[in-house]
Amino acid sequence: MSDFTEQALRYHAEPRPGKIGIEITKPAETVTDLALAYSPGVAAPVREIAKDADNVYKYTAKGNLVAVITNGTAILGLGNLGPMASKPVMEGKSLLFKRFANIDSIDIEVTHRTTEEFINTVANIADTFGGINLEDIKAPECFEIEKELIKRCNIPVFHDDQHGTAIVTAAGLLNALEIQGKDISTATIVCMGAGAAAIACMELLIKCGAQREYIYMLDTKGVIHTRREDLNKYKTLFANNTDKRTLLDAIEDADVFVGVSGPNVLSAEALSLMAANPVVFACSNPDPEIEPELAHATRDDLIMATGRSDYPNQVNNVLCFPFIFRGALDVRASEINAEMKIAAVEAIRQIAKESVPDAVLKASNVDKLEFGKTYIIPKPMDPRLLSRVAKAVAQAAIDSGVARLPMPEQYME
Amino acid sequence: MSDFTEQALRYHAEPRPGKIGIEITKPAETVTDLALAYSPGVAAPVREIAKDADNVYKYTAKGNLVAVITNGTAILGLGNLGPMASKPVMEGKSLLFKRFANIDSIDIEVTHRTTEEFINTVANIADTFGGINLEDIKAPECFEIEKELIKRCNIPVFHDDQHGTAIVTAAGLLNALEIQGKDISTATIVCMGAGAAAIACMELLIKCGAQREYIYMLDTKGVIHTRREDLNKYKTLFANNTDKRTLLDAIEDADVFVGVSGPNVLSAEALSLMAANPVVFACSNPDPEIEPELAHATRDDLIMATGRSDYPNQVNNVLCFPFIFRGALDVRASEINAEMKIAAVEAIRQIAKESVPDAVLKASNVDKLEFGKTYIIPKPMDPRLLSRVAKAVAQAAIDSGVARLPMPEQYME
Repeated sequence: MSDFTEQALRYHAEPRPGKIGIEITKPAETVTDLALAYSPGVAAPVREIAKDADNVYKYTAKGNLVAVITNGTAILGLGNLGPMASKPVMEGKSLLFKRFANIDSIDIEVTHRTTEEFINTVANIADTFGGINLEDIKAPECFEIEKELIKRCNIPVFHDDQHGTAIVTAAGLLNALEIQGKDISTATIVCMGAGAAAIACMELLIKCGAQREYIYMLDTKGVIHTRREDLNKYKTLFANNTDKRTLLDAIEDADVFVGVSGPNVLSAEALSLMAANPVVFACSNPDPEIEPELAHATRDDLIMATGRSDYPNQVNNVLCFPFIFRGALDVRASEINAEMKIAAVEAIRQIAKESVPDAVLKASNVDKLEFGKTYIIPKPMDPRLLSRVAKAVAQAAIDSGVARLPMPEQYME
Repeated sequence: MSDFTEQALRYHAEPRPGKIGIEITKPAETVTDLALAYSPGVAAPVREIAKDADNVYKYTAKGNLVAVITNGTAILGLGNLGPMASKPVMEGKSLLFKRFANIDSIDIEVTHRTTEEFINTVANIADTFGGINLEDIKAPECFEIEKELIKRCNIPVFHDDQHGTAIVTAAGLLNALEIQGKDISTATIVCMGAGAAAIACMELLIKCGAQREYIYMLDTKGVIHTRREDLNKYKTLFANNTDKRTLLDAIEDADVFVGVSGPNVLSAEALSLMAANPVVFACSNPDPEIEPELAHATRDDLIMATGRSDYPNQVNNVLCFPFIFRGALDVRASEINAEMKIAAVEAIRQIAKESVPDAVLKASNVDKLEFGKTYIIPKPMDPRLLSRVAKAVAQAAIDSGVARLPMPEQYME
C-alpha cells in the first residue's frame, strides 16, 4: 500500500470515521433554548409553513441544503461498485460544497432495482432539500434520471458529472481557443468518450457556438456515424455522415481533442496529425489520455489541460458546482438552466484573464500565474470564484425568469 | 401573536434560517487536505468498502448518523399538515440528537402516495445511515411502516412516538407505583387514547409486568371491548370482555390513568373515583388531560406526571431517544429490541432514585430534587442519562445477541 493510500485511509478513519457531521446553528444549551428549538416553540414555524409552504425557506435549513445523491453505478473512474462504496466520494462532495460555498450538504446513497424506482425515491425525498446534486450515476440512465427529476422537482437538480464537467471544460476550452487564435464556430473537435461527461461537454460547446457537424465523437467502437446501428438515442445526436472510423481518421487536422475516456488512448502519432496550434484536454483521471510530457515533446504549439492538480490547467469540477448551486440557491432558482450554465462558463473564463491575487498564488503553491498557454482556467483556491461565478449564475437565473428572489444584497456593489 | 410565538419564529429565522447545518470534521484547508478528502485520495476508502461493506463504518460518517424521517401525517399535536410543515420539528429532533448524545442527525421529509411507497423510499435510502428514527407518522400506518422497515433494514429503526414515549412513561410509572406501594402486576390501568403512543405504552407496560386484562383502553368512542366491530388489529389486542363503556365506568377503582389523548378529558369527578394512592399521567401537550392544579385539589394521595416542563415529573422523550440510539450505535446493534427498551426503562428509573448533582439542579432551575411524589423521573438536563442509559442499552444489545461490536472502552469503569 502506498504512503498516499495509507494517508488517505487514515484521514478518513481518524480520529473519528468520515469527514462531515451535523452542527447546531442556534443556541441549544438551556431549557429555554430547547423550548424554542423543539416543543412547544417549534409549533410556531410549523403553523407558518402549513399556512404558506414558502415559509419553509424562512424557518428551516432547506434553502441552503443540497443533497448529493448517487446509486454508485459509476464511482470516479472505478465503475459500478454500488451505493455503499460510493459514500466516501459523496461525503467528499458534501465537504467541498461546504468548504467552497458554505452550502450545507448531505450525501444520500440509493439502493434500487429499476431506474424508475431510483427516480421515485429521489423525487419522494426532494422536498427536504433546496437542491439536488446527482453524482456518479452511469450513462445512459443518468440522462433519463436527470430529465425526470428536473420535471418532478421544483428545486434545482444538477448532474455534476455531466454539467459541472461541461462548464469547466467549456470555460477552459474557449480560453484556449482564444489564445490559439481559433474560433469555436469553425473548430473541428474530436471527443474521445461518449458517456455522460462527453455528451454534456459537446452539447454545451454547441450552445457556446461549436458546430455539431464539426464534432467527431468516439466510443469504444470508434467514430459514431450515421451507419452504426448500436447507438443509444443520446449518441445518435452525434452521429455524423462520415467515412471516418478510427481516432486516427478523425483527428487529422482537428483543432481540439477532448478526452473523457481512459488512459493513454491518444498516441504521439495521433497528436502529430492535429492542425496547427491544437488544444488537447486529456481529462481521464488519474491517468490522462496522453501524458503531458509526451504531448509537449511531440508538439510545442499545444495547449494542454488535464484533470490532475500536479499539471497546469486542471479541469476540476470544484471550479463550478459549489458556485452554480450558491447562485441558484441565493435567488431560489427553480432549476439550473442553459443560461445559468453559460453564465458560469463566462464568469470562470473572465477570472482567468485577470491578475491573480497573491493569496491565490500562495494557496496554489505557484510563483506566478498569467493568462496564457499554461493558465487558461482559474485555480480551485481562488476566492473570486465564489463571488463572481455565483453572482453571474444568480443574475442569469433572474434574467431568464427562473429566480424566485431578487439579487441578494451581498452581491450588490 | 404571543411573545413566545414571536420569539420562536425569530429563533428559527435569524440570523439564518433553521437550526442545524453541516460541519466539516477533518482538515480541509489546503490543496493537500482536499487531495485526501476527495480525488484522488478518496479512491482508497472506496476500494476498501468495495472489498468489505463493513468498512463503511470505518471510513464514513454512517456509524454516527441517524435520519429523522417523517411524512408529516401526525405533527406534534397539530395533525396531518404534510411533510413540508413538519421540517422544523424534524430539524429540532436532529438538534436534540446532537445536543444530548453527539449523534449526527439529518431530517428527511417524504412525500408519497401509498404506505408501501413510503416504506420503499425509506428502505432505498437506509444504507446512507447508521439508524433511522421515524417521527410524527400517524397510526395505524406507523405500525406497519415500522415493522416492514425493521425487516428490510439492517440498521436500527425506531419510531420514537411509540417507543420513546413508552420507555419514558414506563420508567416514570413504575417508579410512581413503587412510591405508592403498588405492584404493576395487579394494577388496574386506564389508557385514554388508542394511537401509536398509547398502544406502544401499554405493550411495554405489559412487558414490564402489567396484565393485559387489567388494562382498559379508550378511543374516541369509549372503552375498547370485545363486542366492538370498528377496531383495527392493533386496538383489538386491547379489547376486553367487559361491560364498561365510558371513562367513568373504567376509572372506578383504577390505580393508574395514562392519558395520551387530548386536553381536559379527565374530570375531577372521574379522578375522585380512582383507587387510593392513584397514579395519573396526563401527557397531552400543551394542555394535559387534567390540569395539575385541579388534580391536586381533588386528591392529595396522587402522583401526577405531565408532558410539560413547567410542572414536576415531565414525561419527555428526550430522556430516552438520544441515549437508546447512542447505545445501539456504539455496539452497532442491528435493531433496537425489547431487551434494549427494558434496559433503558430500568436505567432511567435508577437515575431518579439517586442523589442529584448540583449542576443538574442548576440547569433545571430547582433547589432540590429527591426521589418521591414530585420527582419520579430524571430531568432532561441530567448528564448521567448519556453514560448510564446508553451503556445499559449497549449491554442489553450485547446480551441479547444483536450487537456487532463489543462494549466500547468509554463505558468501561
